[in-house]
Amino acid sequence: MNKKRNTIVNKDLLTDNYKDILDDPEINIVVEVIGGMNPAFEYIKSALKRGKHVVTANKEVVANYLEELLELSEKNNKRIFFEASVGGGIPIIKSLSQIALINDITQIKGIINGTSNFILTKMVDDCTSFNDSLALAKELGYAEANAKDDVEGDDVARKLSILSSLAFKTKVSAESILYRGISSIDKIDILNFKNMNKSIKLIATAIKDDNRISACVEPTLIEENSQFATVNNCFNMISITGNTVQELQFYGQGAGEKPTANAVVSDIIDAIKPTYSVCSLKKYKEKYDIDAHIFNGDYYFRVTTSGEKENEDIINLLIKSKISYEILEKTCNLVLKIKSIYEDKMDKFISKFKTRYENFCYVRIAK
Amino acid sequence: MNKKRNTIVNKDLLTDNYKDILDDPEINIVVEVIGGMNPAFEYIKSALKRGKHVVTANKEVVANYLEELLELSEKNNKRIFFEASVGGGIPIIKSLSQIALINDITQIKGIINGTSNFILTKMVDDCTSFNDSLALAKELGYAEANAKDDVEGDDVARKLSILSSLAFKTKVSAESILYRGISSIDKIDILNFKNMNKSIKLIATAIKDDNRISACVEPTLIEENSQFATVNNCFNMISITGNTVQELQFYGQGAGEKPTANAVVSDIIDAIKPTYSVCSLKKYKEKYDIDAHIFNGDYYFRVTTSGEKENEDIINLLIKSKISYEILEKTCNLVLKIKSIYEDKMDKFISKFKTRYENFCYVRIAK
Repeated sequence: MNKKRNTIVNKDLLTDNYKDILDDPEINIVVEVIGGMNPAFEYIKSALKRGKHVVTANKEVVANYLEELLELSEKNNKRIFFEASVGGGIPIIKSLSQIALINDITQIKGIINGTSNFILTKMVDDCTSFNDSLALAKELGYAEANAKDDVEGDDVARKLSILSSLAFKTKVSAESILYRGISSIDKIDILNFKNMNKSIKLIATAIKDDNRISACVEPTLIEENSQFATVNNCFNMISITGNTVQELQFYGQGAGEKPTANAVVSDIIDAIKPTYSVCSLKKYKEKYDIDAHIFNGDYYFRVTTSGEKENEDIINLLIKSKISYEILEKTCNLVLKIKSIYEDKMDKFISKFKTRYENFCYVRIAK
Repeated sequence: MNKKRNTIVNKDLLTDNYKDILDDPEINIVVEVIGGMNPAFEYIKSALKRGKHVVTANKEVVANYLEELLELSEKNNKRIFFEASVGGGIPIIKSLSQIALINDITQIKGIINGTSNFILTKMVDDCTSFNDSLALAKELGYAEANAKDDVEGDDVARKLSILSSLAFKTKVSAESILYRGISSIDKIDILNFKNMNKSIKLIATAIKDDNRISACVEPTLIEENSQFATVNNCFNMISITGNTVQELQFYGQGAGEKPTANAVVSDIIDAIKPTYSVCSLKKYKEKYDIDAHIFNGDYYFRVTTSGEKENEDIINLLIKSKISYEILEKTCNLVLKIKSIYEDKMDKFISKFKTRYENFCYVRIAK
């Protein structure tokens, strides 16, 4: 109520009692920009139940309860808009919803976390460490005090959950997405990536293949001259491939006050104008298996070791685990290329590996 | 009526008399995919007047009569959709219309002709001549028998006229756009571009600057690692910069049966669902000067000459015209970098120059 604002707001319009909003029949649209799960989720639900359209920027709530919210919206004949939940100012939710009406969407691929992309850009351009780049991101307001969700992939998994649910017309929960972040990437890795003429990006991918959906989020090495490699700093890029429209790409600032506000206002206009609405996922009958295990490919794998003895131990461990590899460097940094491995096998190997080793990094190499 | 089709259509549904469609009160939406100015423009107008929504893929009609059609649509309370007129399957008209509602748009930049982009890609990748690449484009169905509009920039100017009218909320006619195409680019030029580490693209640009709009279409040399340089073959890319959303980019297949059909069907859904509509330009009061003359920069300029004497003549002509230059090569190909010149001055110089010389090429060098 007493918060300092850049704009003068008539105090009579303000309240800190949510019931005042629900009970006001003149309020047709509720904009939720509280963030976090509680009390936002309850507020959104009760607004829909009370016959109000909802505009939200809350990716946590949308990722967890998209299915329920769309049903509730349909049941109450009110609409829910969440353009600001993914991709900042990029009109991706609206475009994707429309594309999904006409197309059989087979793939979504994206750089959808501005903070981690900013950190990777700094690490590459200025040769700074992960921690220094993160500190700079916080200083510039690109990362919050607790940046775990941004750098460890949680945020990306949530956004990919929203995008793939809309694209594939079935609930793809964040929990079904195998994900990891960028915090284990070291200066030495960045140097190695440069020598391989590759760019490093945190890439979210979801693929539909017959009756199977696979979704994962991984730091990935891509060709230096590829389109995703041109996405730097806080920018996002999302690629959608549909059977009639083919591949589309959307690029723009993924975060920041103004682009996010732009997405929210854009939703408010849609709520006023009656324009599009997102269909309930229930309408679609298709059933899919959802996992991350069709991804097969090579990995860059670096372990900082105490020397030759430990290097040999690790190599023996790989041989024992029947993992093919190629040695790229064998100093106090053992650098390997793990060859043609399924993601679940790699994941299993790593979960064992990390009980014994600490300072290591593995990164998918895109085909 | 008797055309062979891939789909079986009940003959009772077909007619070659347009009045049958106009007079049928059960028809609410008319889809115009005839192309060309006549009779398409009359058909569209009468459909709106008779209370039918119109979906069209006709960039010629839309570029020439956008203002009139939007007014007519508003007057009759029916809507006109033209997503397929620019960018094939890219949802650019819909996105741009919404962005323009919220933003002060300052720049549009795009590769918006798939045919010419395909030809340039082939010339660069396969070292083929313009004519051979054009022949290949025709063979593959990427260019029509008469490809003049595609390769000489007419088509790009029309599309830029549509995009900039929507973006700047005022009529920007194709006639007010200074444009040229790619047919004068020679194998030797492609070789020179490669040696300069530049990529060549046919770029459409429109800028709003205070009360002035400048729009032009020119073959342009851009950095090899820039985003527009990654746009190859038939793909299109459109960049929009607004004051709140910042820069957005949209990328996808710019032509082809399926992506275009995708855009048309997407419009039909919008027509059925009542969703968005494009505002009449008349609502906006701003007045702008429209010209192409604020563009200032460097040019690559190559003339194939009979030798030293002619080279000297040309250099004297430049000196007489007070044009600064740098000599890059002085053989039977005189290759110059023209420095910091306004587009209208360059245009004037070239129109004199081409009365005396035939085999030459000039290309903007992006800053």
